[in-house]
Amino acid sequence: MAEGWPEDRLSTDAFLGGKLRILQPRDGYRAGIDPVLLAASIPARAGDRVLDLGCGAGVAGLCVARRVEGLRLTGLELQPDYAELARRNAIQNGIEMTVVTGDLAEMPAAVREQQFDHVIVNPPYFDRSASTAARDTGRETALGEGTPLAEWVKAAAKRTAPKGHATFIQRSARLPDLLSLMGRHFGSLEVLPLIPRPGRAARLVLLRGRKGGRADFRLHDAWVLHDGASHDGDRENYNTATACILRYGAALPFPA
Amino acid sequence: MAEGWPEDRLSTDAFLGGKLRILQPRDGYRAGIDPVLLAASIPARAGDRVLDLGCGAGVAGLCVARRVEGLRLTGLELQPDYAELARRNAIQNGIEMTVVTGDLAEMPAAVREQQFDHVIVNPPYFDRSASTAARDTGRETALGEGTPLAEWVKAAAKRTAPKGHATFIQRSARLPDLLSLMGRHFGSLEVLPLIPRPGRAARLVLLRGRKGGRADFRLHDAWVLHDGASHDGDRENYNTATACILRYGAALPFPA
Repeated sequence: MAEGWPEDRLSTDAFLGGKLRILQPRDGYRAGIDPVLLAASIPARAGDRVLDLGCGAGVAGLCVARRVEGLRLTGLELQPDYAELARRNAIQNGIEMTVVTGDLAEMPAAVREQQFDHVIVNPPYFDRSASTAARDTGRETALGEGTPLAEWVKAAAKRTAPKGHATFIQRSARLPDLLSLMGRHFGSLEVLPLIPRPGRAARLVLLRGRKGGRADFRLHDAWVLHDGASHDGDRENYNTATACILRYGAALPFPA
Repeated sequence: MAEGWPEDRLSTDAFLGGKLRILQPRDGYRAGIDPVLLAASIPARAGDRVLDLGCGAGVAGLCVARRVEGLRLTGLELQPDYAELARRNAIQNGIEMTVVTGDLAEMPAAVREQQFDHVIVNPPYFDRSASTAARDTGRETALGEGTPLAEWVKAAAKRTAPKGHATFIQRSARLPDLLSLMGRHFGSLEVLPLIPRPGRAARLVLLRGRKGGRADFRLHDAWVLHDGASHDGDRENYNTATACILRYGAALPFPA
């Protein structure tokens, strides 16, 4: 492939305690816990159609598929070299995933002709205007808001089937904008805040909407990532419930 | 006074463990814990100008004044009979409060000519279209959204001094709308969810904005009202920290 990666630019990293092995660039955009938490929150069932919008190397979608058998999984990725990684990652993990290269604002026909029970989105977090450009172009595209949040939400809305759900993970600082955008296309909005420790403000939020939903907005009690009041220097020191998600592939259900 | 209350329609109720005694209608709009929690969250200091927008019988503003000495407190109330109660309540509690009768959408000059360090708002909660009309007209006006939420926010914004704060308490179901409206006029938005018990969704939210603020939006960890996983039948069974606010007049500060 013309856009292929030199192998020495890639690393293979274990997700879900080794249940997934993910090839990703050493210096480009590297998946952290965010796509794993997003995937854990998706209440998909066998046979469901799932679209990972802006799938990068495929971590979020592949995490859902590892937890739920029999998904029909599609990924859409703008950058051809990341799309290639997602295809390789699906194959090396024995998961069926259709990865389409294309722009969500000009949706390729292969995706545009379908609707999905679950659309999952881990859009870029950092406002390009507020940060220095990253050296790596792929990382910059993945982290900067080259595509405005409004486009992500609009694309998600178009591809969500009636009664289907779209779920975003996003920096909590962007929640007001994201809520406003989601409210134009979805009902039954719910927010699950993710807080680093008890008493701290949320760093990330999971936001879900339902196509055609009519339930009141709900703001759930926060999911706590680490126990204890202060940091003990071990960044991997997740509490048991969070470790269960990250290392064993447990679900992170929105409260009923 | 023409709009005076027959005394047998009024009751005197203790707030803040009896530190405030509030005359209010037996059958009309009766203050619950919401204005007390709102008042507890206001970081006012001696000398600050505080506006209680839609003050009803005055509970929120009077609670702030009971906790913080030396405020310059003003209330605006649409309904003359509730404004009269607020005046009587201020006097019988020995608190200086200027209560102006008028519509926030056509702000009386006595209020329009001032700006305030803190504007506090406990707007009506119930969508009139979604509920049966209450029998009592005063209660209906106080509970129904005769005045759209957008007007409350706009009026609060006009009366908030540069670097001053506006704080709303509202049903969490209205948070998306309220955030969107507040974002047009205020920066440094912060939400403090109020949840009935650990793990439950928020019933109410406190939302604060700062005039000219530029800090990121913050979603704080929730304030819990009751301990334990289930209801034991005693509705007054608040946890210690909440009881401290409701019965002793303690503050409920937004986390730093």
